[in-house]
Amino acid sequence: MRAGPSQEEIRRQNLGALLRQVHVRGALSRAELTMALGLNRSTIGALTADLTSVGLVSEELPRETGRAGRPSLVVRPQSERVFVYALSIGVDRLTAARIGLGGVVLDRRETVRARGELPPAAVVAPLAEFVRQMQRASPPDACSIGCGVAVCGMVRRADGMVRLGPHADWADAPLGSALAEVLNVDLPIMLGNAADLAALAEHTRGAAIDSDNVVYLHGDVGIGGGIIAGGRPVAGHGGYGGEVGHMVVNPNGRPCLCGSRGCWETEIGEHALLRAANRDGTGRDGILAVVDAAARGDAVAQAAVRQVGDWLGFGVANLVNIFNPETVVFGGTLRDVYLASAAQVRSRINRNGLPACREHVRLRTPELGDDAPLLGAAELAFQRLLADPLDAGTAA
Amino acid sequence: MRAGPSQEEIRRQNLGALLRQVHVRGALSRAELTMALGLNRSTIGALTADLTSVGLVSEELPRETGRAGRPSLVVRPQSERVFVYALSIGVDRLTAARIGLGGVVLDRRETVRARGELPPAAVVAPLAEFVRQMQRASPPDACSIGCGVAVCGMVRRADGMVRLGPHADWADAPLGSALAEVLNVDLPIMLGNAADLAALAEHTRGAAIDSDNVVYLHGDVGIGGGIIAGGRPVAGHGGYGGEVGHMVVNPNGRPCLCGSRGCWETEIGEHALLRAANRDGTGRDGILAVVDAAARGDAVAQAAVRQVGDWLGFGVANLVNIFNPETVVFGGTLRDVYLASAAQVRSRINRNGLPACREHVRLRTPELGDDAPLLGAAELAFQRLLADPLDAGTAA
Repeated sequence: MRAGPSQEEIRRQNLGALLRQVHVRGALSRAELTMALGLNRSTIGALTADLTSVGLVSEELPRETGRAGRPSLVVRPQSERVFVYALSIGVDRLTAARIGLGGVVLDRRETVRARGELPPAAVVAPLAEFVRQMQRASPPDACSIGCGVAVCGMVRRADGMVRLGPHADWADAPLGSALAEVLNVDLPIMLGNAADLAALAEHTRGAAIDSDNVVYLHGDVGIGGGIIAGGRPVAGHGGYGGEVGHMVVNPNGRPCLCGSRGCWETEIGEHALLRAANRDGTGRDGILAVVDAAARGDAVAQAAVRQVGDWLGFGVANLVNIFNPETVVFGGTLRDVYLASAAQVRSRINRNGLPACREHVRLRTPELGDDAPLLGAAELAFQRLLADPLDAGTAA
Repeated sequence: MRAGPSQEEIRRQNLGALLRQVHVRGALSRAELTMALGLNRSTIGALTADLTSVGLVSEELPRETGRAGRPSLVVRPQSERVFVYALSIGVDRLTAARIGLGGVVLDRRETVRARGELPPAAVVAPLAEFVRQMQRASPPDACSIGCGVAVCGMVRRADGMVRLGPHADWADAPLGSALAEVLNVDLPIMLGNAADLAALAEHTRGAAIDSDNVVYLHGDVGIGGGIIAGGRPVAGHGGYGGEVGHMVVNPNGRPCLCGSRGCWETEIGEHALLRAANRDGTGRDGILAVVDAAARGDAVAQAAVRQVGDWLGFGVANLVNIFNPETVVFGGTLRDVYLASAAQVRSRINRNGLPACREHVRLRTPELGDDAPLLGAAELAFQRLLADPLDAGTAA
C-alpha cells in the first residue's frame, strides 16, 4: 500500500541494484550492467561515478577485446577495501573471516569447539581474538562496514538474543550484546540462524542461485532449516521460522531435546544414524564412518543409512507439499546421509509427495560446503550497504 | 537486482497504492490518503483526478464536520460501476457473485452441488448461467474487469488446469479453458486454490488483516492451506504450495486419497471426525451434529472431538514451528472442530511447539465466514487493476 519512491529514493535503489550486480556476479562491463539493469548508458555512467567516488567500485579498461570500437569500461567491486566480519558458531567449530565486497574471503580463522554446556563468554572470547588478529592484519585503507554472525540456534533478529541453543544449553543467552561488548568495534552486529544464513548464501551464490523457492536443510546434532519462498526468506513473526527439525514426524518416536517427541531431528540427526548403526562417535567423522562402512558392505550400517534416508525423504516430502520448491539442498551431515541414501530419499518423496508439488524439484548438495553459514553471515552484514550504498559509511 | 522504476512507473504505482487504500479501507478523505501514502496534498489531488477521470473513484464533500476550515474531499471507490465476477467451486456448493471495487457484494447466487465424480462441464454450466443472469441484471454503465475462480483442488495458475481435485475425481481437468469457453466474456479468468484465496481475503479484509505471517486452514473432506509469509502468499514454484493437508502426521495412519498414508487430512477431515464418533452423515451438517452431541454430553462424540482436536493441534504445532506465524485461522469445518476442541488444540501446540515460535500466535476463526474463498477470488481478479489502474480497461 506504500506510495512509490521519490527521485532520491530511486537513485539510491539504482545505486544498490548496480552494486549488488557486481557484488554477486563480480566485475562487469558497463554494457553488461546496462543490459542487466535496464537503464541507459548515461545513467549507468553516473551511478558508477557515484559508487567510485565513495570507494565501493573501481573502473578500468578491459584487457584487449579484439573487437573494434570503444571498449566498455569494466566495473569491479573494491573487495580489498570494503569488507565485513563474518562469524560462525557451529556445534563443533568457531569460524571467523574477513570477507570483501563481492564475497571474497580475505582472511579466515577457525578453532574446534568442545560440545556440551558452554557459557556465551566461552564462545565469544576466541571469536573476539580472531577479529582482533584480522583487524591488525588488514591493510590501513581497508574499511569494515558490518559484522554478521551465524548461530546454530534460534536467534531473535532484533537484538541477537539466542532463544534456544540446545546443543550449548543456551536459553535466552544474550549473545548479541556479549559480542558487542567484547568485539569493541563500532559496527552494526547482526545475528541470524545458521541454516537461514546458509540458505541465503546458497541462494545468492551457490546451489540455489537459479531458484526462487528453496528448502535448505542443515544437519548436525539437530536439524536446521532455511526457507526461501518467492525469492524471499521465510523469517516468520519473530525471525524463528524454518524450524523444520521440530516438525513431528513420528508421534510414537523418541523424546527430543526441545521437550516434544518424535521431532524430525530425532530420526535424522547425528544420534539417530549412529544409534541405528549401533556405533559410538560424534559429528561429521562419526557420520562418515557409518557411510563408509555401508559403502564397504557392512549390513548394519547399510540398514541404518536406508532407515535414516527413508525418514529424510519423509520429512522432505512434507516440505515439498507445503512449499512446492524447485530446489532442496542437503547441508552439513545431511549432505553425506543424502548422498549415501539418495534412492531411499527419492523413493519416499515419490510415495508421499503430491505429483504437482514434486514434479520439478531438484535435490542438491551445497556448492559452498561447510562455509555456507559463514558466507551467509557475510551476506547479512552486506545487506545494509546494498540497500543504500551511500548511507553505510564507507567513504575513504 | 532490478533497477528502480521510471517516473511513469512511479505514477502508476502511486495510482495503484491510492486505489488500493480505498478498495481495502473504503471511502477516505484526501487528508487521510495524504497521511497513509506519505505523499503531499497536491500529488494526492492529481492522482485522485486521474482515477476520477477513468471512473474508478468519485470525490464529494463530506457531511458536516463541525470543524472550521475547508473540509477535505472524500474519495470513494466506484463500487457500483467497476466490478469483477467471483466464482467458487466448493465441495458442496457452487457460488457466483458480482463484487464491486471495495469488496462490495452486489449480487450473489449459489446452488448445492452433488458430491462425487463430476465432469468439469457439470460444474461450469450452472456457474455460466449465474454469470449470464447477473450480467443481465447489472446496470448498463457497469463495467466488469475480470473474473476470479476459487477451486477446491490444486490449480496451475498459468492456465487454470486443475491438477488434482480428488473430491470430484479430477486429474488434469482443464477447468480454466472450459470456463473461458462457456462464460463467453471478454475478461481475464484467473483460477486459484480455495484455501490460498481464502487466506488472501482474510489477510486483506478479515481476521488476519494485521498479520504478516498467517496460516489459514480450510476443512471439508480434505484439508487445504493458504500461507502468507512476510506479507506475501507462499505460492511455490508452480503455485501448488500450502498443501498442508498432505503433510504426513501419522506414519501408521490410514490411506489417503492422494495415494500416501497418514496425511493430516486423514486425521482431521470430515470423515475422521464422523468415523471417530461412529456416525453417518457428511459435510457441515454431519460435523455440527457431532459437535452438538459433544456439547450435550454424548461421551462418544466428546471423545471424537477431543481426538480430532488433538490431531488438529498436532499439525498446527508443526506449522507454527515452520512458519512462526502471528495468526492461524480455522475455516470451513475446522472452524467448528476448533471451537469445540480449543483446549486440546492449544494444549498440543504448547506441548509440540517451540516456545519462541508459538509465544505470539493467535488462533482465530474467519471473519468472512464461508464466503472467504469467493471474496478471495474477487481479490485475485482485482489484482491487475490495483497494480496498474490505467491499464485495465475501465474507461466509461
